[in-house]
Amino acid sequence: MTHIGSLDAGPRGTIADVAGVTVGHCTLAQGAVQTGVTVIRPHDGDMYRNKTPAASCVINGFGKSVGLVQVDELGVIETPVALTNTFSVGTVANAQIRAAIAANLRVGREDPSVNPLVFECNDGYLNDMQALAIHEAHYASALDACSADFERGAVGAGRGMSCFELKGGIGSASRVVHIGGNASTTGVLVLANFGKLQQLIVAGDALGRTLQTSVDEKPEQGSIIMLIATDAPLDARQLRRLAMRAAAGLARTGSVYGHGSGDIALAFSTAYTLPHDADFITMPPLIADARLDPLFQAAADSVEQAILDALFSAETVAGRDGHRRVSLKDALRTTP
Amino acid sequence: MTHIGSLDAGPRGTIADVAGVTVGHCTLAQGAVQTGVTVIRPHDGDMYRNKTPAASCVINGFGKSVGLVQVDELGVIETPVALTNTFSVGTVANAQIRAAIAANLRVGREDPSVNPLVFECNDGYLNDMQALAIHEAHYASALDACSADFERGAVGAGRGMSCFELKGGIGSASRVVHIGGNASTTGVLVLANFGKLQQLIVAGDALGRTLQTSVDEKPEQGSIIMLIATDAPLDARQLRRLAMRAAAGLARTGSVYGHGSGDIALAFSTAYTLPHDADFITMPPLIADARLDPLFQAAADSVEQAILDALFSAETVAGRDGHRRVSLKDALRTTP
Amino acid sequence: MTHIGSLDAGPRGTIADVAGVTVGHCTLAQGAVQTGVTVIRPHDGDMYRNKTPAASCVINGFGKSVGLVQVDELGVIETPVALTNTFSVGTVANAQIRAAIAANLRVGREDPSVNPLVFECNDGYLNDMQALAIHEAHYASALDACSADFERGAVGAGRGMSCFELKGGIGSASRVVHIGGNASTTGVLVLANFGKLQQLIVAGDALGRTLQTSVDEKPEQGSIIMLIATDAPLDARQLRRLAMRAAAGLARTGSVYGHGSGDIALAFSTAYTLPHDADFITMPPLIADARLDPLFQAAADSVEQAILDALFSAETVAGRDGHRRVSLKDALRTTP
Amino acid sequence: MTHIGSLDAGPRGTIADVAGVTVGHCTLAQGAVQTGVTVIRPHDGDMYRNKTPAASCVINGFGKSVGLVQVDELGVIETPVALTNTFSVGTVANAQIRAAIAANLRVGREDPSVNPLVFECNDGYLNDMQALAIHEAHYASALDACSADFERGAVGAGRGMSCFELKGGIGSASRVVHIGGNASTTGVLVLANFGKLQQLIVAGDALGRTLQTSVDEKPEQGSIIMLIATDAPLDARQLRRLAMRAAAGLARTGSVYGHGSGDIALAFSTAYTLPHDADFITMPPLIADARLDPLFQAAADSVEQAILDALFSAETVAGRDGHRRVSLKDALRTTP
Repeated sequence: MTHIGSLDAGPRGTIADVAGVTVGHCTLAQGAVQTGVTVIRPHDGDMYRNKTPAASCVINGFGKSVGLVQVDELGVIETPVALTNTFSVGTVANAQIRAAIAANLRVGREDPSVNPLVFECNDGYLNDMQALAIHEAHYASALDACSADFERGAVGAGRGMSCFELKGGIGSASRVVHIGGNASTTGVLVLANFGKLQQLIVAGDALGRTLQTSVDEKPEQGSIIMLIATDAPLDARQLRRLAMRAAAGLARTGSVYGHGSGDIALAFSTAYTLPHDADFITMPPLIADARLDPLFQAAADSVEQAILDALFSAETVAGRDGHRRVSLKDALRTTP
Repeated sequence: MTHIGSLDAGPRGTIADVAGVTVGHCTLAQGAVQTGVTVIRPHDGDMYRNKTPAASCVINGFGKSVGLVQVDELGVIETPVALTNTFSVGTVANAQIRAAIAANLRVGREDPSVNPLVFECNDGYLNDMQALAIHEAHYASALDACSADFERGAVGAGRGMSCFELKGGIGSASRVVHIGGNASTTGVLVLANFGKLQQLIVAGDALGRTLQTSVDEKPEQGSIIMLIATDAPLDARQLRRLAMRAAAGLARTGSVYGHGSGDIALAFSTAYTLPHDADFITMPPLIADARLDPLFQAAADSVEQAILDALFSAETVAGRDGHRRVSLKDALRTTP
Repeated sequence: MTHIGSLDAGPRGTIADVAGVTVGHCTLAQGAVQTGVTVIRPHDGDMYRNKTPAASCVINGFGKSVGLVQVDELGVIETPVALTNTFSVGTVANAQIRAAIAANLRVGREDPSVNPLVFECNDGYLNDMQALAIHEAHYASALDACSADFERGAVGAGRGMSCFELKGGIGSASRVVHIGGNASTTGVLVLANFGKLQQLIVAGDALGRTLQTSVDEKPEQGSIIMLIATDAPLDARQLRRLAMRAAAGLARTGSVYGHGSGDIALAFSTAYTLPHDADFITMPPLIADARLDPLFQAAADSVEQAILDALFSAETVAGRDGHRRVSLKDALRTTP
Repeated sequence: MTHIGSLDAGPRGTIADVAGVTVGHCTLAQGAVQTGVTVIRPHDGDMYRNKTPAASCVINGFGKSVGLVQVDELGVIETPVALTNTFSVGTVANAQIRAAIAANLRVGREDPSVNPLVFECNDGYLNDMQALAIHEAHYASALDACSADFERGAVGAGRGMSCFELKGGIGSASRVVHIGGNASTTGVLVLANFGKLQQLIVAGDALGRTLQTSVDEKPEQGSIIMLIATDAPLDARQLRRLAMRAAAGLARTGSVYGHGSGDIALAFSTAYTLPHDADFITMPPLIADARLDPLFQAAADSVEQAILDALFSAETVAGRDGHRRVSLKDALRTTP
């Protein structure tokens, strides 16, 4: 797979190059059920007591994610980030609530509540989404599996996803930049489920127009969730700016943010946490806005790379009603 | 209860004065469980096939409502509007998904999905919210109960809510205005659960400073959801403008949109619906923006009136752990 | 004039109670020309080299202010804040640019530019706005006049403004709160030019319905600019939250944010400045969001008080074409 | 120049393929003064009496454009669209105001005001921007010059602009799509002034890394304004969605929306106008959101094409202080 851009990747080439970030999957793959849950932990401590600065950018809002109203207002996340299929958002949110009750809210009962954070794409082409196969235990299972070493491709929430009418799913990438003499790592994880084959651009090459594989008649009904982690000290306003750069990386793969695609980015910083209960917020020195360009480049390049990673990592999957998504590798193999 | 402003109310004095709008409750009131679900139907047809133009305004985003990302992008709602407690949002969203599958999505399986729309306030002072007492069937029950005649006060989602440290809950009001010779009705339903007693203003009177009742030491952890229905033909951009006027009515009751309060308004028009599947959107002639002032006044006055209605309608309720919220009527009775 | 709310005012009862903030006017009052410029300086140093954290809230965007696109992105202001009439925004922006060139941009020519920040209301009822009487020198004159002691009422940009069909103009107020044992001052300056007489509420009293004075047939074409200064350490995200609370104070005077009214708030903090050129941003410990409620109350109360201050400070003014705005004091005197 | 994407261009290959849209320039090119004004007329009638539906998208808000607050609220533009350099925004806004007074506001004096709409990029590398060489007459001159046949490259507002450290300026492109059997034309005009050479991608080829030409040490201080015209019937909400797609075309040329770049898009529809004074807004049947994808593709492809058009059309220009921008053609010629 081509390396995108001129910045170096981190050692793993995944979001886990940002120290402390881990990822876990729970995959359901049996017959017509091809779906799952993926969890991204910004740190391995108590996310509720030590909140992570974050901000989102809704590039196209045909999506059913939960939690963004409060993230926009307060600039923090207070649970791990969960990914799943469209119809399982409520169930995974319930699992996050139950986990918060167990850990914090019954003990400290006067604490008001918790803000679940669940993103989704629609895997209904391969997965019998109407079967509502995801249960709360699957979230717990994905959470338990969190590790700096994690699989990509047709796993977890990515199991049933399609991308450019090929097999999509989970992809990841990272880039290292230097700002003021300090190395800083930015990593991305995507749940890629968007695009028409005709649009696909791989590292500048309009490959989609030449690939020979089956295509749909229907308009795009996909989505992409793009999570950007950075160890650079940024506040919520700056993280919103960083999240917006996901739109650049996404566009370079051929997307024009289709009507039916919920294209949403979330950026968070691991450089500090904010205590649940305190009179004052103390932040480390933040990178000045005028020095953010390397991080913007890192975010955009990582998003493009992560989408390609999803395409190149995913295996061909067969799902409900004879539907089948061919992997990019298989499509390349069978195209003369 | 004082009549707010100089505009006339409709015959019922509730949101049901907007023709076609109905409201239903499911109330759970046993011991420590004091909670429920309220459903507002913009019309009695298939909400998915015939979508209702709508827009939201997040006045303060400390809230966990679901569905607003897509409403903001597309300007329509495609399910009834549900209200419940903070921890039951996922369950009620699941119920909306299951209803959509039963009615539409399994039949027309290639339809991508449905956008649940659930708003919440935190009733944890009276209600044992951690017990997660709401089940999917309670949504169905509230939906079935929808009627133009409905109760207000400590019912449905309002069962456990507090407002100005008094008993809050469901309130409603309406106003009739004339634009270009045509009568037009705007109605409001609120789920009122915000404010410190000290702040309460009733029709211009800073009543909260004189009432003698028990108060909390804690900061506000409330919220208010304000639903505005109008039979005036408006598009989503205009409805967003209308939704913003909820902030004016809310402020007149004493709120300054407290940090911990999820203050969210949603406005919808019943003047037309938008088909799920069509090449073109045909809208009736819309009211020109320069003629919107009477509607803005109607929305603000109705919100203020609806909050007072919630306070005057609600009975004293006792809930979990000996917690108790006195009704405004009882508080007035016992204050010399 | 009634004291609004239960918080104490600062010693001056104006925005200048926030240490370092000064205000200056240049007033043109001759025949049909009744207009001016008002300048608010957040600090008396070089605003370009030492930027002030700030954020805006557009409550109703029927307005022609300049500078907000960049304030929203970067969270700082880099010039004094200027107020004037609608048609003079370009001229005052030019004056700010010329001042920046003289002070900084010709010397440090490679610096890219400066972001002028000019707010406006439409004083065309009293003032012959089409005469374009404001020149760049009037901005310089207002800037030179900046002082902690400044007039309110029909002065500066407020000279020709109307409010509730009475004489409006410049008003100011302040409130002191205690957070974590520390006293903190929030001050407000408004340029008040909005509202129909019928709507006017003075300290909870719907006075507008009883006053006997001349009224217009026309819909509102006003606006209000609300500037909120605080010495509390807040970042741009938090200042946006503070700016939103202007909507509460405004509503309590009777406004429903009329269609034709450009209702815009800007909040800034004097607790620290951000250097024009630096690798890192160092901020003092910020007040935690969960402790912001007293500041929200201070902002809302100060806005309400400042609007009343404008009404009670302004004298009756006669302007173009026999148009005349009676002061509130005169209207009260002549109403039986 | 490569044709971008698989959609056909209109006959002119410019924004003037959208019937009724015309463009005019006024160019100042003498010594250190290398700047100008460009005007885009959505229709040749009275823009104030017959407003054009429009919406903007701020991709990165390091910019000083005027007029967007009101466009966002009301969804219309009521003047021609003007482009110029950063420091001339106030002067061009004044020219628009003076034109509106002459045409409408003195006659119909009780009309409240007019919303100037001026976008800018910073041409300070080539142009002595501090000389403030643009006068109001230059706007009138550009307006008079409006024609469906217009020059691109280093003309009008584009005279002094830089793009990828090469000569930038005005570029234009168009695409024709079919929706429901009807042909529809979307055209774009850009004022391109952004990017580092290293980032430049031409039709998928990372050309910037191989070109041999002089580069700056400094970070980007550019900007790009992207105007999208369509004859498709869309409302303001939909036009905002269309404007967002500019971000996709921009990204494909290598931009990551640099910190110092004011990247702003405005989309407008020529399918109908909205009268200044009316009780009702009557719109033609609008294209359903679910059918917008071809328009999204057209907008993104046209933006990419228009940026390349600016680069390929512009000639090498020498400006202030020995600064010089080489054209892409010259850079290609001198690179082995």
